[in-house]
Amino acid sequence: MKAPLAPLAELGFAQVDLDRARRKGFPEVVYGAGKSPDQVVRIATALFRAHGRVLITRIDAAHVRAVRKHFRTAVHHATARCLCIERKPLPRRSGTIAILCAGTSDLPVAEEAAVTAEFMGNRVDRIVDVGVAGLHRLIRRLPDLRKATVLVVVAGMEGALPSVVAGLVDRPVIAVPTSIGYGASFGGLAALLGMLNSCGTGVTVVNIDNGFGAGYAASQINALATVPST
Amino acid sequence: MKAPLAPLAELGFAQVDLDRARRKGFPEVVYGAGKSPDQVVRIATALFRAHGRVLITRIDAAHVRAVRKHFRTAVHHATARCLCIERKPLPRRSGTIAILCAGTSDLPVAEEAAVTAEFMGNRVDRIVDVGVAGLHRLIRRLPDLRKATVLVVVAGMEGALPSVVAGLVDRPVIAVPTSIGYGASFGGLAALLGMLNSCGTGVTVVNIDNGFGAGYAASQINALATVPST
Amino acid sequence: MKAPLAPLAELGFAQVDLDRARRKGFPEVVYGAGKSPDQVVRIATALFRAHGRVLITRIDAAHVRAVRKHFRTAVHHATARCLCIERKPLPRRSGTIAILCAGTSDLPVAEEAAVTAEFMGNRVDRIVDVGVAGLHRLIRRLPDLRKATVLVVVAGMEGALPSVVAGLVDRPVIAVPTSIGYGASFGGLAALLGMLNSCGTGVTVVNIDNGFGAGYAASQINALATVPST
Amino acid sequence: MKAPLAPLAELGFAQVDLDRARRKGFPEVVYGAGKSPDQVVRIATALFRAHGRVLITRIDAAHVRAVRKHFRTAVHHATARCLCIERKPLPRRSGTIAILCAGTSDLPVAEEAAVTAEFMGNRVDRIVDVGVAGLHRLIRRLPDLRKATVLVVVAGMEGALPSVVAGLVDRPVIAVPTSIGYGASFGGLAALLGMLNSCGTGVTVVNIDNGFGAGYAASQINALATVPST
Amino acid sequence: MKAPLAPLAELGFAQVDLDRARRKGFPEVVYGAGKSPDQVVRIATALFRAHGRVLITRIDAAHVRAVRKHFRTAVHHATARCLCIERKPLPRRSGTIAILCAGTSDLPVAEEAAVTAEFMGNRVDRIVDVGVAGLHRLIRRLPDLRKATVLVVVAGMEGALPSVVAGLVDRPVIAVPTSIGYGASFGGLAALLGMLNSCGTGVTVVNIDNGFGAGYAASQINALATVPST
Amino acid sequence: MKAPLAPLAELGFAQVDLDRARRKGFPEVVYGAGKSPDQVVRIATALFRAHGRVLITRIDAAHVRAVRKHFRTAVHHATARCLCIERKPLPRRSGTIAILCAGTSDLPVAEEAAVTAEFMGNRVDRIVDVGVAGLHRLIRRLPDLRKATVLVVVAGMEGALPSVVAGLVDRPVIAVPTSIGYGASFGGLAALLGMLNSCGTGVTVVNIDNGFGAGYAASQINALATVPST
Amino acid sequence: MKAPLAPLAELGFAQVDLDRARRKGFPEVVYGAGKSPDQVVRIATALFRAHGRVLITRIDAAHVRAVRKHFRTAVHHATARCLCIERKPLPRRSGTIAILCAGTSDLPVAEEAAVTAEFMGNRVDRIVDVGVAGLHRLIRRLPDLRKATVLVVVAGMEGALPSVVAGLVDRPVIAVPTSIGYGASFGGLAALLGMLNSCGTGVTVVNIDNGFGAGYAASQINALATVPST
Amino acid sequence: MKAPLAPLAELGFAQVDLDRARRKGFPEVVYGAGKSPDQVVRIATALFRAHGRVLITRIDAAHVRAVRKHFRTAVHHATARCLCIERKPLPRRSGTIAILCAGTSDLPVAEEAAVTAEFMGNRVDRIVDVGVAGLHRLIRRLPDLRKATVLVVVAGMEGALPSVVAGLVDRPVIAVPTSIGYGASFGGLAALLGMLNSCGTGVTVVNIDNGFGAGYAASQINALATVPST
Repeated sequence: MKAPLAPLAELGFAQVDLDRARRKGFPEVVYGAGKSPDQVVRIATALFRAHGRVLITRIDAAHVRAVRKHFRTAVHHATARCLCIERKPLPRRSGTIAILCAGTSDLPVAEEAAVTAEFMGNRVDRIVDVGVAGLHRLIRRLPDLRKATVLVVVAGMEGALPSVVAGLVDRPVIAVPTSIGYGASFGGLAALLGMLNSCGTGVTVVNIDNGFGAGYAASQINALATVPST
Repeated sequence: MKAPLAPLAELGFAQVDLDRARRKGFPEVVYGAGKSPDQVVRIATALFRAHGRVLITRIDAAHVRAVRKHFRTAVHHATARCLCIERKPLPRRSGTIAILCAGTSDLPVAEEAAVTAEFMGNRVDRIVDVGVAGLHRLIRRLPDLRKATVLVVVAGMEGALPSVVAGLVDRPVIAVPTSIGYGASFGGLAALLGMLNSCGTGVTVVNIDNGFGAGYAASQINALATVPST
Repeated sequence: MKAPLAPLAELGFAQVDLDRARRKGFPEVVYGAGKSPDQVVRIATALFRAHGRVLITRIDAAHVRAVRKHFRTAVHHATARCLCIERKPLPRRSGTIAILCAGTSDLPVAEEAAVTAEFMGNRVDRIVDVGVAGLHRLIRRLPDLRKATVLVVVAGMEGALPSVVAGLVDRPVIAVPTSIGYGASFGGLAALLGMLNSCGTGVTVVNIDNGFGAGYAASQINALATVPST
Repeated sequence: MKAPLAPLAELGFAQVDLDRARRKGFPEVVYGAGKSPDQVVRIATALFRAHGRVLITRIDAAHVRAVRKHFRTAVHHATARCLCIERKPLPRRSGTIAILCAGTSDLPVAEEAAVTAEFMGNRVDRIVDVGVAGLHRLIRRLPDLRKATVLVVVAGMEGALPSVVAGLVDRPVIAVPTSIGYGASFGGLAALLGMLNSCGTGVTVVNIDNGFGAGYAASQINALATVPST
Repeated sequence: MKAPLAPLAELGFAQVDLDRARRKGFPEVVYGAGKSPDQVVRIATALFRAHGRVLITRIDAAHVRAVRKHFRTAVHHATARCLCIERKPLPRRSGTIAILCAGTSDLPVAEEAAVTAEFMGNRVDRIVDVGVAGLHRLIRRLPDLRKATVLVVVAGMEGALPSVVAGLVDRPVIAVPTSIGYGASFGGLAALLGMLNSCGTGVTVVNIDNGFGAGYAASQINALATVPST
Repeated sequence: MKAPLAPLAELGFAQVDLDRARRKGFPEVVYGAGKSPDQVVRIATALFRAHGRVLITRIDAAHVRAVRKHFRTAVHHATARCLCIERKPLPRRSGTIAILCAGTSDLPVAEEAAVTAEFMGNRVDRIVDVGVAGLHRLIRRLPDLRKATVLVVVAGMEGALPSVVAGLVDRPVIAVPTSIGYGASFGGLAALLGMLNSCGTGVTVVNIDNGFGAGYAASQINALATVPST
Repeated sequence: MKAPLAPLAELGFAQVDLDRARRKGFPEVVYGAGKSPDQVVRIATALFRAHGRVLITRIDAAHVRAVRKHFRTAVHHATARCLCIERKPLPRRSGTIAILCAGTSDLPVAEEAAVTAEFMGNRVDRIVDVGVAGLHRLIRRLPDLRKATVLVVVAGMEGALPSVVAGLVDRPVIAVPTSIGYGASFGGLAALLGMLNSCGTGVTVVNIDNGFGAGYAASQINALATVPST
Repeated sequence: MKAPLAPLAELGFAQVDLDRARRKGFPEVVYGAGKSPDQVVRIATALFRAHGRVLITRIDAAHVRAVRKHFRTAVHHATARCLCIERKPLPRRSGTIAILCAGTSDLPVAEEAAVTAEFMGNRVDRIVDVGVAGLHRLIRRLPDLRKATVLVVVAGMEGALPSVVAGLVDRPVIAVPTSIGYGASFGGLAALLGMLNSCGTGVTVVNIDNGFGAGYAASQINALATVPST
């Protein structure tokens, strides 16, 4: 296998993949947790230079301070724990991504999905606190659910919401288990297993608390709906 | 602590607790699995002599043959895997126990609960195949759910049904996870964890596939509704 | 399925279910953990307006300060980590709920169950430190156990107490595993598994440390004993 | 909530959801495992009457015999363990679903996905035995990967293939862990965890061995590409 | 470290440790499971030649046939799944080992402990079916419990019996979890964790179903009571 | 069962079991973790009044300060995290308990065992840092191992030391897994499983980090060696 | 990345990697389990044509019959469950691979390692039944251990043998956990965790029962010793 | 077995194994975590006296301060969390150890491996941030991979990198799972299981985050390549 000459930024501690935008349709995203503020700034700089837009997830206060010093226009989404840097926003696609969450405590994960999807050029419809213990809160939003191209459903505890939603709509449902819960929730394991065993058809699942992954996959799917293959 | 002189039948391999009917309001029940047909018959004989009624659960074909040879009137509930022997049935209590199951494959566990509850003198309302992927099947039975004194809800896979049911009724819900499922259901673990983490209030849980335990507890609760404490 | 017009309070981050009192016989309860003090106050305000009573569980010091600023008469149960706000207490039902705990360290969970049950209008009999390593401490309370309509049994470590109690009484036993223990207790898993596998009949189980859930279910059951079905 | 009058077929042991085609765009699918041959036939009959097409998954030899007696034209896909009954096939959509599998032993799961997707009206491109231990087998198929609208990637053991594939394409990747492996594969758990933790963006996951679920979700996504939202 | 010249029998597939009787006070014991009948016979022959006594555990029918062909006087304990071969029995020690089991299904494990202890020269007092759901069955045997030098307590399901027993006696309690149970017993894990977390002091634990290990350790302890150190 | 009139101290939050010394041969021991300093002092006071000796384990600095204010002569064992209060020490028994630990980090658990055993009237021989990676460190202590009546073997990581020790001596070995390790040690689980599966005969196991339990059981066994049964 | 033109045999159900011998120094090995006899024969045929040698592992009787029909000279290693086909054996390397196993039941896994290593051109020294419960059996073989270039250590149950061996030699130790054991061995998990947490330096680990992987890695290491890098 | 007179330093809390350099070819290494700074200094002193070189791993700031006070020339590797003390460095061996890591967050573990290998006299080639989501970053380093005698591959999350690397080279691959990840990574369990189930031949695995162990084993293997056996 010949070594291809793909562009990358060699930073010593990282090789930033500058080819990803070409291969994947969107530049590399920076996962902040476990990286020093300085490392995050240097990776962001390389990406911004190449693509004019950077998304940084799982940030803490030190990351925010360091990034803002270098990127005055960086937008900090506090609940979502994300930083968005861009020269100008992407144009919005036509379809809508519905992002539901079962409870108030699931909001940070849902917001990470929403910020990701919006930064990637999608319209997002947030539908919060529609857990299955009070079905009428969900049912009254049925028209909104059915309007969406794809649905991201975020829930902790028993993670039952995706099953119920998948029974009501004919679009793909991406289920995001959260670590909300205690005792036998085992850090989100209960919700994860529940979603993997969902009796609802068309449900796929991402890692516990992985709002970013769900928002990214939803954006990929929504892109298909607006730019159909031939 | 003085050794009490409680009645028991000493069989060598077992000490049948003949005092249980006095203490617990219902005689000892025989758990067939892991006992030889001969052991089951001898325990059943001791219990029948003392109480005139025996319930045997988790039986196989050899148990059925052996028991029926000794107790001609024993009734075999094939789906529930139970044998019921009684001189005459108990009078039926007034309230109703609703027993729901999410799918067809959960029927054996639901039937074990139903046979147990009926044998203990309760009326049972069976509501089958009402999984959350098709909510209308459940919603159309709402009047029946609300009429019940206590509800037993049996489900495998993600075990979401008890959460939804508990959101609709004001009576106790006993959740029974089943081992129905595959892969990450891990023999019913997913359903069990889901039910333990239920966002529905008033849900309590029994062991995986423990239809008997659910039927028994439901009977105890129903008994309270008909014979109120003072 | 038509969207019903059930009452709810739309707060942006939450949709407070104001219909729950009608459906469930008791208003929505606020789970404090993971919510900001401000969110708790706003949810409590909506609930208090609609129902005149609010129960808040799993609170920390910041919650207490914020809530008390708005609700001067809020009662703080420190061991139980609960706040109770009510215009006037509910009348007490006739039957008694016995709440047992195996050790001193299980008290916070037992108190959460007790405060919940009392707030819902029940008489509670607290029986503390009756672990199975000193059976006489339990046996001398046998008359109290047998007087109760329903029993909540709280235990950590090996979680053996519910099995022993269920062998002594003919009323429903709700078992609450706690995270008390170390090493192979795995955060309450040992007690949870022990209770799910209880050889005692009539035992149902709630999540680890879920005193609230046990108190709620016990109240539902006790309500049946005082208002029998017909 | 009013009980809707949705169509269903009440069979005693099952309530066949005849409304699902309307809500979900495809009729209910029959999961054969755990159902008797007779139950499968009766459910299939109700579905065929209503929709003219039935998919039955996880079948054994007895199911095949029973179904073929009633439906002479039923097609048995042996590797996929599926039965397909239809008056006439659905028209094929334009886009292609690529279905990759890492090894020969993963074929039954991959075929379940392929048969499902084809039965739902999609073109499928099968790419077999492209595990990461011999990357060139995968790389030479790169043009095929990039032509697909959506990719289903089936792998057991360490489940690394979806990560590699997701790094090469800009379309949604649905990862299917299989139970192929031994020892610390723990029945597919290793592959499942690997896929959930994938460093590849745009990867979502279904249950272990759930080829059907992956094929179904892929079909939903492919449908979006051919019928774009407005 | 110099290689010692300890006696052993080199059989090709095994090196039988003929020095163990000197080091450990009792010859090597043969674990039958996973060995062919021929391997068992050849190991037994080497041990019998050296020590005049052999204990073989976890045997199946083929082992029994093969061993009896070579050792006409071998005694087969069917419930315990053991074979005992000895020129003449060891003299019995003075103290007694009490072996309790919670239920009838635990008998095979309890018998393995009993046969082991008896073969090693101890008196055994069997106390069966004394599970904690009917405490009076245990309490009436209190004098026997208190007479024992050491107690082996065998239980499946929630494994609560050792805690209760340890609260009643001042002698060492060896707890043996069994794989009896279903669902969340997870093959004896629940009982094992229960016993490891026992609130009873003086409880030590062996592997699930390891009756042999418990009998062996009990014999070692009982030996101390009859031959005190100086 | 009649309620016995056993002595206990009713403290509201605890019922101190003053009968335990009679039943168990040693008074109740106070487990400090999870109890407030005030609770510990009050329980210790009740026990000291009745028995003249108190052992408190798993203490923190606040416990030490509070207890010492009330009991000037309390001895604080810092490594063992224990407090010992006694009017006068028990006379020492003749036999010796050997307490081995595999590594320096296991010392706190080994010391908890040693302090417990000494406080209960036993001679202790400490043998530290004899892990199996350098067998000669263990082998040179062989004479000390063989002199002991009973051996407590403390080890973290893979927990192999008890197996090796049990192969060298003919006395009971009590294995104590510790939470020392990282990664796949899973908080001591690896060591615990290793010890439960020990190929060494005569090994019994206590909970992870349970030095107290091992010291207690060793003392019970050593007591048998000096006061033989008749 | 350009698609390389590496040689492979396209069989429809498999793409046999004919380039592996060049990349890896040894041809692809066939894992028999889960493949039909016919599939195994066809893959073996493609490999034999290209390389003149084929190793097939994890075979059953049907594989043996089918392969021998096509390859008359195939050698069946029954204990190792392997088939070896070769035109002529590879020349033997100078160094020796020592393969130890703890017990007789571990022999199949040890033999799989030995057959693999021999087929790859290595000398193997088998050292059986040297479990740590009788250290002298191991110590007397010390000279053989120290002569080996690399050691494969196979053990089930607590998996302690690699730690002890690694403490005695200065060569790489490859540890192979086996599924031998019962109860809390959890199918080899205990041995696996023990080996991963080994206090012995220079120990690396392969999957449970993966004798092939250990033999392969040992051969790679041994090859380095005979053909040193420059 | 006679007690050998092997040299060791008896420090009370530790027996430093001064014989290890002879047996293992390298002196004992100090694992800092869980030891007090004073203990580390005293062990280091004993080792330095005997061997003139000490490696200390898993250190914190207090260890660094204490050690540097005694050893002015100690070198602190901050990312690797190691301290190296030596009179003069070992001569470098000829072959190269390649140490790869999948992501920036894996650097501390990779550096622990690198520092260990260098301190033991090896040349190290660091290849960072070559995760499988951007294969070209890895492929362009293929010549470096193929030059190495042995490869250490460090990865968290799904741990797929070792499988890909093992498919490209014919040298031993030592896989190091890291605890980098979240949710269903379960502290590195996902990466560990992935590596144990690797489809790549010649992969062996060490404990999660065990950079030291991998560096040590790699050094042992590299030593074989430069000093071939005869």
